[in-house]
Amino acid sequence: MDLVAEEIDIGTHTPTVLLHGRDASELGAHPLDRVRIHTEGLTETGIVEVTDELVEPGRMAVTRPLGHVTGTVSVTLASKPEAVGAIRKKLEGIELEHHEVDRIVRDINDDRLNDVELAAFVTGLYTEGMSRQEVTCLTTCMVDVGHRLDWDQGIVADKHSIGGVAGNRTTPIVVPIVAAAGLTIPKTSSRAVTSAAGTADTMEVFCDVSLDIQDIEEVVARTNGCLAWGGSVDLSPVDDKIIRAETPLSLDPASQLIASVLSKKQAAGSTHVVVDIPYGEGSKVESLPAARELAEDFRQVGQRVGLQVECVITRGSEPIGTGVGPILEARDVLAVLEGEGPPTLREKSLQLAEVLFEGCGVDADARAILDSGRARERFGDIVAAQGGDSGVTREDLRPGDHRATVPAERGGVITHVDNGQVNELARRAGAPKDKGAGIDLAAGVGHEISPGDELLAVYAATESKLDAATTYADAHEPVRVRAPADTVVERQ
Amino acid sequence: MDLVAEEIDIGTHTPTVLLHGRDASELGAHPLDRVRIHTEGLTETGIVEVTDELVEPGRMAVTRPLGHVTGTVSVTLASKPEAVGAIRKKLEGIELEHHEVDRIVRDINDDRLNDVELAAFVTGLYTEGMSRQEVTCLTTCMVDVGHRLDWDQGIVADKHSIGGVAGNRTTPIVVPIVAAAGLTIPKTSSRAVTSAAGTADTMEVFCDVSLDIQDIEEVVARTNGCLAWGGSVDLSPVDDKIIRAETPLSLDPASQLIASVLSKKQAAGSTHVVVDIPYGEGSKVESLPAARELAEDFRQVGQRVGLQVECVITRGSEPIGTGVGPILEARDVLAVLEGEGPPTLREKSLQLAEVLFEGCGVDADARAILDSGRARERFGDIVAAQGGDSGVTREDLRPGDHRATVPAERGGVITHVDNGQVNELARRAGAPKDKGAGIDLAAGVGHEISPGDELLAVYAATESKLDAATTYADAHEPVRVRAPADTVVERQ
Repeated sequence: MDLVAEEIDIGTHTPTVLLHGRDASELGAHPLDRVRIHTEGLTETGIVEVTDELVEPGRMAVTRPLGHVTGTVSVTLASKPEAVGAIRKKLEGIELEHHEVDRIVRDINDDRLNDVELAAFVTGLYTEGMSRQEVTCLTTCMVDVGHRLDWDQGIVADKHSIGGVAGNRTTPIVVPIVAAAGLTIPKTSSRAVTSAAGTADTMEVFCDVSLDIQDIEEVVARTNGCLAWGGSVDLSPVDDKIIRAETPLSLDPASQLIASVLSKKQAAGSTHVVVDIPYGEGSKVESLPAARELAEDFRQVGQRVGLQVECVITRGSEPIGTGVGPILEARDVLAVLEGEGPPTLREKSLQLAEVLFEGCGVDADARAILDSGRARERFGDIVAAQGGDSGVTREDLRPGDHRATVPAERGGVITHVDNGQVNELARRAGAPKDKGAGIDLAAGVGHEISPGDELLAVYAATESKLDAATTYADAHEPVRVRAPADTVVERQ
Repeated sequence: MDLVAEEIDIGTHTPTVLLHGRDASELGAHPLDRVRIHTEGLTETGIVEVTDELVEPGRMAVTRPLGHVTGTVSVTLASKPEAVGAIRKKLEGIELEHHEVDRIVRDINDDRLNDVELAAFVTGLYTEGMSRQEVTCLTTCMVDVGHRLDWDQGIVADKHSIGGVAGNRTTPIVVPIVAAAGLTIPKTSSRAVTSAAGTADTMEVFCDVSLDIQDIEEVVARTNGCLAWGGSVDLSPVDDKIIRAETPLSLDPASQLIASVLSKKQAAGSTHVVVDIPYGEGSKVESLPAARELAEDFRQVGQRVGLQVECVITRGSEPIGTGVGPILEARDVLAVLEGEGPPTLREKSLQLAEVLFEGCGVDADARAILDSGRARERFGDIVAAQGGDSGVTREDLRPGDHRATVPAERGGVITHVDNGQVNELARRAGAPKDKGAGIDLAAGVGHEISPGDELLAVYAATESKLDAATTYADAHEPVRVRAPADTVVERQ
């Protein structure tokens, strides 16, 4: 069928073709089918949407990726992309072969799948799972379509936390310790997705994190390490596209998690990785057996793709550190680097560094590097190399001007601090966008509390955001205090 | 956050809000998240898409369903619709309760789900399945959101075939037989989706099929039956929306199939239904045990929603009748009604009618009604009531002017006629759009064939469509002929 093409911008990255219902029917094309567009010496494929409002019969509108298709073109119904057959196979519970995983990854990378197909893939990974061999394929295929760094070093160290724990800002402590020991550690981190701060958000308090590959190479050449935002370097572009289908249902299939983490590490040129797996109530991994299984999967898949992976299973049911929000976490980080700060953050960071040293077969003493001030010094070097002030002090890091405290209504012992509620509280206060917004926990699990004691302080940039946060805190129980016989909540 | 809203048409039915990346980030909104829009005395919810090209910071574009939202409005991040939690639960393999299924159906009906969520639901039905209780809920919830016919009759008969078989045009034969026996049978049928003709496409050869509810009531009042297109009456509106997520991966979960069929029957006011379940190679149901299981599911769910369902398991690996394409099938139908025509079509129609009579507890003789010409007469009445010519003859039904035959390359016995290839052949010839296009099979399975004998004739409206069809036929084997020692295909 011949149609006259014109460009339209509907804000989609997928090559989409809007057809009038009459023409779609004549072509036998349904919404989300593909058509092939034949124009001078060129054949393009587009995903069909049917609308009688935007186009007239005999015409078709193409989105920007097909913007070069203009004038009268010949349109035929096309078969589905090969990836669709492979996704269908996964839904049948059948193990995919390397070339099938490769087809899926390439079609996602090239924006050739529509949302329904992408969602069916992610849902299939979630309900059917993947074998270690499949996850290995997924990992290497994801690396193949992205950029890759090469360090010309025997050992390149890296770390990753699978997330879900508030205030868990170990990376800016581990990286300078490891770099100070002489190991190369080109660390890229993410920004907050649903949390109050990602490592990239926190590091942005100190310096620029939007480094391109050349910047990273320069910073690492000067300091052995870097603390960059992963979004600036295209290390695993497919991952970002898959997230679109994970977010709406909060699906995070283990297979995709492992492939996502290990593909980024491999693309970063890393050889030895420590993975922090927090588990427990409210974190991503609910039980210790599940955490152990995930750790074993990480190690095994790592081995198959040529990465030595060490896993550390950590307590994930409560926050690490006391600050939650970019500046409040940055303050904790600096405190630990200067020999003070929250013990949970200090000890966890040291243990991650030690496991990494052990995995790399390096005889270094994380505690000595931290306590001697060499880690603080190296942190300053990295910050300076990324355009920041190496001499920044804790006093320079000022949280939001508006402050309120949440007191304990009754006495007892803190039995639980809820990651989800703490995150939500900090987000309502304005984090991660307002760098100074967030919360500071006054005490952790196990501490004795008297009625009226401060449980946490909220910081915000405006009074209205402070109100939004305290209103949330009043209606919930981010910090749980229990006395032995504390059963009746109130009498009505 | 305050934003200035303006309308944009991007051809989507879902209420969509296009935000600039900067504003989305400030709101903490990701693509496919929801935002709540507060405008004078009204709160609306929209699905987020992020684009820096179509909107400027401080502005937002809303699609037509939100077209009344204009000027400066307050926008906040909204929680996900309740249906999302229920879909997530299904993906965990947990049985859904009635109110959860209800929420999903209502949110789909109101276009509140994005493609990812809709796809996750359909994929979940496919991989996790549904209990009979869940399918019962799905059926009644689907009925609840659509129109419903009421016949004020004790018995209202109906039939349905789950499809996948070429030329299977029993409906226009069964309906007049049943109507002539004095039963009410208000039949609605579909158009072709992936086949060469649906019953609605075939009936359109005779008369108007786009009847609204009042038309249907008038036709049934005059003739006891009708042969209408279901698309004109909103009997199960959710079904059409779910199809969007089924088509791309050709997913057709049994639970959704049963709910789709029975909800339409219930909405049509039917009380007794016969369901034709073709099984075998290449049809929707591959094995006899699977067909039996599906039949039991149909009966049990039917009983729970108050429908008496009889199932007939039929041979589905080869076409029924000889014509494939609207006019060619219409000719077969008329031939059977006039006492001739393909024996497979005649016998299958009679058996379906007999099972329906039995199920309804009615003492009528389908064979006598057909052979006496009463069915032909009643068919003419229905055609006339739907605005057609009751006296139409087989000679009036002229297939496409361009005709080619496909001869047997070797002698032997016809061992298989492939539904998929026959459909594809007829579609390439122009069916269902060109009413006269399609194929006519010269002989069926078991017939002895000499080299050069005609296997089938292709009809098309143009020479180029005829070429497209014969080229396909030459490259495939729609009709398989085998001699006992026929193993070598060719020597190269």
